[in-house]
Amino acid sequence: METQKQTTMVVFSGDLDKAMASFIIATGAAAMGSKVTMFFTFWGLNILRKEQFVPVQKSLLEKMFERMMPRGPGKLGISKLNMGGMGSALMRHIMKKKKVASLPELMELARELDVEMIACTMSMDVLGIKEEELIDGLKFAGVATYLGEAEQSKVNLFI
Amino acid sequence: METQKQTTMVVFSGDLDKAMASFIIATGAAAMGSKVTMFFTFWGLNILRKEQFVPVQKSLLEKMFERMMPRGPGKLGISKLNMGGMGSALMRHIMKKKKVASLPELMELARELDVEMIACTMSMDVLGIKEEELIDGLKFAGVATYLGEAEQSKVNLFI
Amino acid sequence: METQKQTTMVVFSGDLDKAMASFIIATGAAAMGSKVTMFFTFWGLNILRKEQFVPVQKSLLEKMFERMMPRGPGKLGISKLNMGGMGSALMRHIMKKKKVASLPELMELARELDVEMIACTMSMDVLGIKEEELIDGLKFAGVATYLGEAEQSKVNLFI
Repeated sequence: METQKQTTMVVFSGDLDKAMASFIIATGAAAMGSKVTMFFTFWGLNILRKEQFVPVQKSLLEKMFERMMPRGPGKLGISKLNMGGMGSALMRHIMKKKKVASLPELMELARELDVEMIACTMSMDVLGIKEEELIDGLKFAGVATYLGEAEQSKVNLFI
Repeated sequence: METQKQTTMVVFSGDLDKAMASFIIATGAAAMGSKVTMFFTFWGLNILRKEQFVPVQKSLLEKMFERMMPRGPGKLGISKLNMGGMGSALMRHIMKKKKVASLPELMELARELDVEMIACTMSMDVLGIKEEELIDGLKFAGVATYLGEAEQSKVNLFI
Repeated sequence: METQKQTTMVVFSGDLDKAMASFIIATGAAAMGSKVTMFFTFWGLNILRKEQFVPVQKSLLEKMFERMMPRGPGKLGISKLNMGGMGSALMRHIMKKKKVASLPELMELARELDVEMIACTMSMDVLGIKEEELIDGLKFAGVATYLGEAEQSKVNLFI
């Protein structure tokens, strides 16, 4: 196995600021010619949720988790100073004013740059998230797939 | 120094969800033939605490920290939606129902797969944690030992 | 591109405990002969703020963020058990008593060991932080500079 230009990230966090950081690094690396794989697990799956409600069969417990977790990039809070959503609204406002790409724009860019996005199937099972509830264009796989990519990558991050 | 199949993690967090992620990655990598080293530091040490109280001599300050920190995998909270322990109880319940391996089971598996677990001696000193309070089979070492392993590893994570 | 002894960190967090961990790893790696680059982004920029107030022109929104964010290592809270600053005061007290290097001392050491510290210009723009408000001896650059270093590093961490 030889050293390739490859970047792999575990996106564990579902905070807006960390999601932004992930996609800024991912799109930057892809633009610089690196193959990039993002493995979304636990709360990171919330970044990939469709904003609209998708009717799927769930157990009561799964419904509870579903309601408590943010649905998609527009609903994520920030990891500090969130203040019940005021902080994240403020950050979104500032980013827009400063003409920094928003999270949905970065996600769109990642797609165009062929960044591979994998949703962790074990976490989906635990949190009761179904494929139909997530955005299109994802791969669904487990930790072994992530590890296969990670072993080939020089840059490995856990976010 | 040649590129080996080796994985190294700093486990800084003592949250149940992040601890689970660490051990899922660690056992997965070990099962795929990688040498794996986990370096437990700061709150990550709480994952390694014995569940029962161990009588050791401590200063008043050390006792204060000890009482505020969770003792072992059964007491860890989750990083989001913990709600005074309700969230972590819920997650444990769901994982059991879905037949996902629990944290103690993953830790046992890690041991069987010869994952090396190192407790950071500097953090133990700062938090007032003694060797007798931690589970068996650990190595005790500092950051230089971690760095020696990290330099040989392709996959390096900070969790 | 050949494998060099190089270490690169994204310092995203502005928590005292994580900042300590970053600098302990950074100074350890530098002492062991590694080139080390720290890329400070988002809340991590607060670690680099001068403790005294620096009068610079800011918008109202920028002033709001400035006031809510800690100014320099002496004001950072810890990620767990902070309890309105009591936890971090306690930790600072214990570290001093145990003769563990403080964060300002570790930062001084990092400088002496030629650890490269880069402040993320995009985050500075978003959070309204100006160059004059940060400590001396920093480089100012964006994610592409970070990625250039990361690609050459065997140890890559996101903290």
